[in-house]
Amino acid sequence: MAPAATSEHTPLDPFDLPEGHPFGAHNLPYGVFSPAGQEPRVGVRLGDHVLDAGAVAAALGSPYGTLLARPNLNPLLAAGRTAWSDVRRALTGWVTVPAHRETVRAHLHPLDSVALHLPFEVADYVDFYASENHASNLGRLFRPDEEPLKPNWKHLPVGYHGRAGTVVVSGTDVVRPSGQRKAPSDPAPVFGPSVRLDIETEVGYVVGTPSAQGTSVPLAGYRDHVFGICLLNDWSARDIQNWETVPLGPHLGKSFATSVSAWITPLDALDAARVAAPERTVPLLPYLDDSAPDAEPAGYDLRITVSLNGEVVSEPPFSGMYWTGAQMLAHMTVNGASLRTGDLYGSGTISGTEENERGSLIEMTWNGTRPLKLSDGVERGFLEDGDVVTLSAWAPGPGGTRVGLGEVTGRIVPAPVAP
Amino acid sequence: MAPAATSEHTPLDPFDLPEGHPFGAHNLPYGVFSPAGQEPRVGVRLGDHVLDAGAVAAALGSPYGTLLARPNLNPLLAAGRTAWSDVRRALTGWVTVPAHRETVRAHLHPLDSVALHLPFEVADYVDFYASENHASNLGRLFRPDEEPLKPNWKHLPVGYHGRAGTVVVSGTDVVRPSGQRKAPSDPAPVFGPSVRLDIETEVGYVVGTPSAQGTSVPLAGYRDHVFGICLLNDWSARDIQNWETVPLGPHLGKSFATSVSAWITPLDALDAARVAAPERTVPLLPYLDDSAPDAEPAGYDLRITVSLNGEVVSEPPFSGMYWTGAQMLAHMTVNGASLRTGDLYGSGTISGTEENERGSLIEMTWNGTRPLKLSDGVERGFLEDGDVVTLSAWAPGPGGTRVGLGEVTGRIVPAPVAP
Repeated sequence: MAPAATSEHTPLDPFDLPEGHPFGAHNLPYGVFSPAGQEPRVGVRLGDHVLDAGAVAAALGSPYGTLLARPNLNPLLAAGRTAWSDVRRALTGWVTVPAHRETVRAHLHPLDSVALHLPFEVADYVDFYASENHASNLGRLFRPDEEPLKPNWKHLPVGYHGRAGTVVVSGTDVVRPSGQRKAPSDPAPVFGPSVRLDIETEVGYVVGTPSAQGTSVPLAGYRDHVFGICLLNDWSARDIQNWETVPLGPHLGKSFATSVSAWITPLDALDAARVAAPERTVPLLPYLDDSAPDAEPAGYDLRITVSLNGEVVSEPPFSGMYWTGAQMLAHMTVNGASLRTGDLYGSGTISGTEENERGSLIEMTWNGTRPLKLSDGVERGFLEDGDVVTLSAWAPGPGGTRVGLGEVTGRIVPAPVAP
Repeated sequence: MAPAATSEHTPLDPFDLPEGHPFGAHNLPYGVFSPAGQEPRVGVRLGDHVLDAGAVAAALGSPYGTLLARPNLNPLLAAGRTAWSDVRRALTGWVTVPAHRETVRAHLHPLDSVALHLPFEVADYVDFYASENHASNLGRLFRPDEEPLKPNWKHLPVGYHGRAGTVVVSGTDVVRPSGQRKAPSDPAPVFGPSVRLDIETEVGYVVGTPSAQGTSVPLAGYRDHVFGICLLNDWSARDIQNWETVPLGPHLGKSFATSVSAWITPLDALDAARVAAPERTVPLLPYLDDSAPDAEPAGYDLRITVSLNGEVVSEPPFSGMYWTGAQMLAHMTVNGASLRTGDLYGSGTISGTEENERGSLIEMTWNGTRPLKLSDGVERGFLEDGDVVTLSAWAPGPGGTRVGLGEVTGRIVPAPVAP
């Protein structure tokens, strides 16, 4: 649970938001909140407020009260695409039809008066590696004598399972992990707090509708199974990861914490942001081939900002991702692996072609050799204790509006002293 | 859910089991069962019967009824070491004290009259790689020009996260997975059902007591956090795995199914089977160092049998595993990763030094080049549709008895026809 914000500014009138406000009635992302001293429940963000969705549904005699008056989003996620659309239509009506205004107002809470919680119980967590620029940068850094991309990279979205139990909501402190590391010059591994703690700027996809083991979900099943997206920071201890990673991939370098934004933006709020994926440079097998002229675009034009201690250090563009969320889902299930409500999968680090579009410090600083120059002469190769990293984003909305995705933020706290 | 067995032999009298029966009162493993037409509930195996644990607890006025009258083991797992010992002591009394005999008998169900279910909700699933013989064999097969073990192997238990949502109970059919594969001679990857479907003979450790994110569990915390063990078959599609695995490790080659035995053997039933781990050939960092003279042995002498269509094909010895369950747990949490009730971690494939002690077909057949010769002239490189694989095991018990671990079995069914 993230502590309630402490700023005391006067929240905007939710029924008179400035034009184009990123959390207007065109957005309505879902989260879980608790007013002081009360139990967590599902909320919907409107401007600087959160609407108690189950309470307003009950007050208005809506049949969706039972889906919404819950401590997390899982029942809504499990209800499926038709219910998601119906509930969103109902919510849109409640917050826009003047006759409901006083009822809605009675169930609004200023955002800075509530605590925000992990919005859903995470079932399985898979992390992909879908940015060609990121995968190429890491290839150049770690395997300078080889082709930057492995031979499989353009044939399938490479991914691996992460630790679902350490996914935390934005605002949760991240304890610096300890572990083994070994530089090539070290005669043996040493143990201690990571000295190369990094971020990974990602988008997370939240699965609602489950699927049966032994079946697969085609590309066209994406919108039936995926409820929405969030921002995701896949904190990474590069030194721990580098030593452990052969031959079975990352483990403790990642498993200590993964942060997600408090707000899940439904796919239905992102229609205006959809973009086609980049042209493929190798032919895809049919189950991944999204080149049909009538295929729905499954990429998103998200404008992401990465801040370190309040200074913007990068603006990675999501629209250039090689693999889409629909392809990741089709690949993840093509072997018959089932989906469960609450499954989360991440895009992998988002990096653009430019130096100021990279989504991890290891890329921004080229493995620490070119430290970031922050204000007041401060430099950063990797994260120091006390550093605060914030990812925020918006997407183009209908009629020139913006759809806010909120933020995912976390502060690094020191490793515990070894016993 | 596995279907109820259909054999109709007369079950043994549970109060007059033959001496040394592997499921006598010295064992009492836990599972989840349902009598025909009834709901699943916690059961304890006694001979050829399963005891409805919650019902007998209620009938005898025991305070443990609330922990046991449940649809899975998670509440008992969450209750912690003291409760585990107390419940086991109570159960042992109920099935051995003559005064309780008729009450107990009223709550016994013949095993072949019930269905067995996945005994606990799996939280996170991690698979290790703890057998030196297995890791060396795979190194020789896949990287013949290198040292068989990677440089990190003797410094830390290498492991990775698997898919918790596809863990199934023994008896569940396994659908042959489809996916991409690419032989070195193929110009591009091809798609289709796996043609190199394999098994991995493993032991699974079931976590009961959770731990807080940002803290670690020392070696000495093993028995406080781990409730018991099971048999585990980590089905593996070698062709899919081989193509996808760089640089982030196995994913779809494993995620389609992992089978576990229906019975969880509590650590308290395995005291007589404890053995010291093999001598370490490199010094270990303190958090993994189990060489103190007063350290409790955390290895187990399990006698495992691997059968293919009823013929024994291997007998891998668990006592020789390089890394113990206590070390895997200490490593998995040393970075501050939390534990949740229901976490499952696997030992990795168990292989001995001898050819008839290998735990996977890829080792037994040396990558398919030396097929197994079964009766009636049948040969097997990898698994064919209809094949049934069964892992079974027992451990030395008190006074020369045997502690049965039951079995984990699964039949391969054909991949669905592509749409």
